[in-house]
Order: sequence, then C-alpha cells, then structure tokens
Amino acid sequence: MKITILGAGAIGSAMTFPLVDNGHVVNLWGTEYDLRILESLVEGRHHPSLGVTLSPKVNLFYPRELEDALNGSEAVFIAVSSGAVGDTVQRALPFLKDHLEDVGIVILSKGLHEENGKVSLLSETVNRIISKYEKHTPPIAVVGGPCLAEELAARAYTVAVYASADTKFLECCKNNFATSYYHILLSHDVVGVELCSALKNVYTIAIGWCDGLAEAMGVKSMNNLRAFVVSQAIKEMSLLLRFLGGREETVYGLAGLGDLEATSRKISGRQLMFGRMLGLGMSVEEAMAALRKMGVTTIEGYSTAKKIYYMVLRNKDISASLDLKFPLLTSVYKVLYEGRNVEEEVRRILDYGNPI
Amino acid sequence: MKITILGAGAIGSAMTFPLVDNGHVVNLWGTEYDLRILESLVEGRHHPSLGVTLSPKVNLFYPRELEDALNGSEAVFIAVSSGAVGDTVQRALPFLKDHLEDVGIVILSKGLHEENGKVSLLSETVNRIISKYEKHTPPIAVVGGPCLAEELAARAYTVAVYASADTKFLECCKNNFATSYYHILLSHDVVGVELCSALKNVYTIAIGWCDGLAEAMGVKSMNNLRAFVVSQAIKEMSLLLRFLGGREETVYGLAGLGDLEATSRKISGRQLMFGRMLGLGMSVEEAMAALRKMGVTTIEGYSTAKKIYYMVLRNKDISASLDLKFPLLTSVYKVLYEGRNVEEEVRRILDYGNPI
Repeated sequence: MKITILGAGAIGSAMTFPLVDNGHVVNLWGTEYDLRILESLVEGRHHPSLGVTLSPKVNLFYPRELEDALNGSEAVFIAVSSGAVGDTVQRALPFLKDHLEDVGIVILSKGLHEENGKVSLLSETVNRIISKYEKHTPPIAVVGGPCLAEELAARAYTVAVYASADTKFLECCKNNFATSYYHILLSHDVVGVELCSALKNVYTIAIGWCDGLAEAMGVKSMNNLRAFVVSQAIKEMSLLLRFLGGREETVYGLAGLGDLEATSRKISGRQLMFGRMLGLGMSVEEAMAALRKMGVTTIEGYSTAKKIYYMVLRNKDISASLDLKFPLLTSVYKVLYEGRNVEEEVRRILDYGNPI
Repeated sequence: MKITILGAGAIGSAMTFPLVDNGHVVNLWGTEYDLRILESLVEGRHHPSLGVTLSPKVNLFYPRELEDALNGSEAVFIAVSSGAVGDTVQRALPFLKDHLEDVGIVILSKGLHEENGKVSLLSETVNRIISKYEKHTPPIAVVGGPCLAEELAARAYTVAVYASADTKFLECCKNNFATSYYHILLSHDVVGVELCSALKNVYTIAIGWCDGLAEAMGVKSMNNLRAFVVSQAIKEMSLLLRFLGGREETVYGLAGLGDLEATSRKISGRQLMFGRMLGLGMSVEEAMAALRKMGVTTIEGYSTAKKIYYMVLRNKDISASLDLKFPLLTSVYKVLYEGRNVEEEVRRILDYGNPI
C-alpha cells in the first residue's frame, strides 16, 4: 500500500514504524512548522521529539512537495495539530481528487475544529470540506486510545482504537496497519472516540494541578487528590458523551480512561506540565511563557477547554446545571480564562459530595 | 466521641489524624505484628511506615491491652490485614458486648475473608461472627476509595467512600470523621465497594508487570501498555461486580478506578513492586524473597487473586467463559500460581481484540 502521513510531529513520525514494518510505501510530509524536524530527518539524525531515527525507507517531503507526497496515495493519515486539520485538508484536496475513490483517511490528530465560533469534530470537518468540492467522500477513521508517540516509535506494546462508521474500512485498517506491537481495536462510536481524545487533554491539565499543588503545599505527592480528579473527569466525560451523542461505555474503555491514563502519566507531557505550573501558583501567562522557553507553542488542552465549554453552554440540557454536573470542567475553564486560583477551585470541587 | 482503631499499621495510624482533628478521644491498639511500630510510637518517634509522629493525644495500646482499648468505645475502626479481620473481631467481641448497641463498626481493611475454602466479604464476616454470639449486630460501614496512608497522615486532600446499608450510620460517619482535608462520600453499594477494594490489589500486580517489562525490554516506559491493562482491569471489574452483586457504576467511580489509580501510582506500593519484579522475569518465589528482605511479608493482592479466582470459578455464569471474559484475571492467577511467563501472558491478553 502507498501511504501518506501529513504532519511530521511526534505522532505522525511514530506512525511510520508500524506502517514500514507492514511493508508499505510510506511518505512523510512536514508542514511549515516541521522544518526543523525535516532537516534533522533528511540528514539521518534523530527526530527531535521522538529521540530516534526513522527507517531509511520513509520518504520525506517538504511543505512545498505536498503534490508529490500525495501522488497515488491510498491512505492518508492526518497528524497535524488539531487547529491545522481544516487547512491541511484544503491544501491536500487538489492532489487527491483524481483518485479520491481509492483513498481512505485516518485522523491521528486529537482535538476540535473551530470556525466562526462554530465548534465541530475533526471527522465532521474533514468530511464537510471534502464534500463541498467532491461528490464522493472517502471513508474516514479517527484514532483514539493511549498512544504515547515515543513508545510507539520504540515498538513498545500499544493498543489503538480506530473508529469509523465504515466497517469495511475499519477492517482494512486493522489488516494493514496492525503489527505484533501495534494492536488495533475497532469501534463505531466516532463521536465518542473523538470527544474522549479531545477531552483528555482538557482534564489532564486539572490532573497536573495536583502535582503542582503537592509541591506548593510541601507534601511528597497528592495521589489521593489526583485519583479523585481522574474519577471526577471520567464521570464528567461520560455525562458529556451522553449529551453530545457518544456512547458512555467508550469513556470507560481504552479511548477514554485508557488515553487519559497514559497522557497523565507522561511527566513531560504538555498538558500535564502546564497544569502543574498552574498548581504551583503560576498565572496562565507565566506558565505559557515558561513552556515557550522550552520550545512548546501549542497546548491542545488550553484551546480545547474553551471550545468544549462553549459547546456545552450551547446545549440547553447541560447548560442549566453546568456548575453542578461539570464542576471540574467549569473550574478548568475559569482557571484558564478567568484567572481563578487552582487551590480554591480544588476545594470547591471537593465540596461537591454525591448524595447517597 | 470515643473511638478505637484496631491495627496500628499505616492506614490505622493515618486515620488518627482526621479523628484527632475532629476532637475525638482516639485509642490506637496494635496487634502482635505491630510491636515494632508501637515501640516507636510510645517513645514519640516516627511511625515506621508513615514517616511522621502521631499526635500526642492518641492513646496507644499494646496487644494485651485490648480490653482497655475498647472500654466505652463508640466507634471501632478495623485496620488489620484482611486475613486477620475475623480473628480480631473474635478477640474484641467480649470487650464490646456490654455496650454493643452504642457501637458502630468501620472496616478500613481491604481484601476478602477465607475460611474452610469459603470466601466472603469482610463486612459479611464481621457481621456473621458478631451475630453468632449476640442478638444485636451493630451498623457496619466499609471504607473504599483512594487513600494512600502517608498522604492522609500529611493531611493532603483525600476523598474516601463509606458504604453501608445503614443510612443513619453513614451520615453519622460523615458528620463525625470528615475534615477540611478528609472528605467522605457515601454509598449503599457495600458489595461493590468491598469487591473494588479487594480487586484493585489483584489488578495492580498486573499494572506492575508493565513497569518491569519495560525495564526488561530496555524501553523507557510502557505507559501505552499500562493504560491498556488499566482499562482491561476496569472492564473486568465491572463485569465481576455485575455477576457478584455490586453496582457497575461503583467501578467507574472513586472506589473503583479512583482506588486503582492511586494504588498503582505508589511506586513503593507492595502490589506494584511485586508485579514489577515478575515483569522483570523473577519467579514468584524470588520476588517474595526480595520483598521479605525489604520487610514486606503480606502482599494482599497475592492471596486475594486466588480467592477471587475461586469465587469466580464457582459462579456458573462466569466460569463458562472465564478465559474469554476475564483474560487478565486468568493471567494474573496463572502467573502467580502456575508459574506462567508474564510476557507471554501479556501477548495473549493483547490478542483479545474486541469485535466492533
């Protein structure tokens, strides 16, 4: 199979491992933000975020070489940051339209799309853009579940969840992309898997608070509080999915608590570091400045928090009891956008005892 | 209130903090296994497992002083290892019977009771023993949820779940034992909370495998695999509760995934260390010998794994499809009691893909 990966960041580049190991022809295209990565890879050096070299079989493409990268491609993996998914599909479409009926699209990006104040799922966004220009829209799968890129690139056991309405395409993905270390489970709950992937970035910020608070308060760890925050996150995620059209059981599986678990264990993860800094008492601006110094520019959970919060506010079933049913989401929003204090918010959430 | 805690181990001793802060008279009684702890505490030194001194207001009692420890007590916290719960209640009963109608019992121990091959919940065990001798049986609550003892002893935020059939007693517990840092949520699902508390010790062993495997295979971390194991554990726990009489939603809350989360994050936790050693390739005997050298004699999850496995085997609804529905529980049992290899078992579990 000929496969193109759009986005040479950590997850796009890590995905080359199972694809090359499956014997596919793999084209990796980098965006304008990936130039430093591409330079390193072209010279055969380590991928800066993964810390390993890619297989020499991977064909590398610069931003201006998008047409070549997509030439004859049968599967396109989208692995850019969630905010860039719409633009990237727009750019790619002219080079795909001549063989669109032979293409399947796999979305590795995790987050939500926003346009003119309207928030939508990435799969909806991709589908909408393509169907604006073309009659035939290709099958689309979204990938969820715990998949830290550096572990996949180390060929450490990973189980991903592929979700699509198209069963045939799902089976094609499983047959062609799985390896002995990269397992694939299948789901029809596209909405649920996408929402879980987006939400875990938001809630991981709150999990990070606990680590920061522990440090600020001079105790070794706050794993009891952390576990409370995790279970509150899972509770709110299941309620959100119920209202927004996903299946609750998706939250209790790999795509929900599995992804949250892995993301919140990665000490150098962006959302966790960001949350920890806020828990330590830094303002949002100070934390962002500190992260910029470390080379981190995008914090998916920061923008997703606002998108989810607005999505939820517009849903009348939810907005009437937002504070009561989603105290943690409300707190994350207020800490990120209204300058609220983390410790006060934590105390507020702890007081939401459940009645018997 | 006059309160007696039976068992001066980590959790029994940590519980003195919220109780003393509530202004209660607190008697802490140590078993024959707690002599070293008692000696240290009597001399005003640190509790060996908690690393802090207790309040001088805590009254300490040696094993032979059980009668004095229980004199006039209105609440008895049971905090001995799960295997000793039955014996401890037998010993305590003569000193409680004269004021049994004024006593409430709170079980902090987590595990299952076994007698002549019959496995039962700790709350059932306590109730059975008392009702054998007395007409009046006191209200019993079990405590679940994430509660690492050293964090509670550091007054770090903790949320516990108290479960009982007796609503009035639950409210009495919440009113009398909660503090600004020790929150209490209430539940009527005694079976569910007890099973979750026992099961998390079993599944944490399997979570530990991942850390050991990562080391053995020379990769930095296996958080993707770990998250898969966690979500498989939650899946099996919810199914077990469904069959054994608990409520599935208890698994998705603080007593289930919350407790599993906290337990599996404590690097020096017994089950996690034991699991990690097995993942590294040590035999059960080698791992136990290594732990004994570190002073660890009881690994709750080891004995509980066998009890749960037999409990499940005797349930016809489950036993017919044990391997299929509980691949992780089966693997833990086989690694612990049949000398199976961890890595082979992990590969076997990974192959249990879910159909769409």
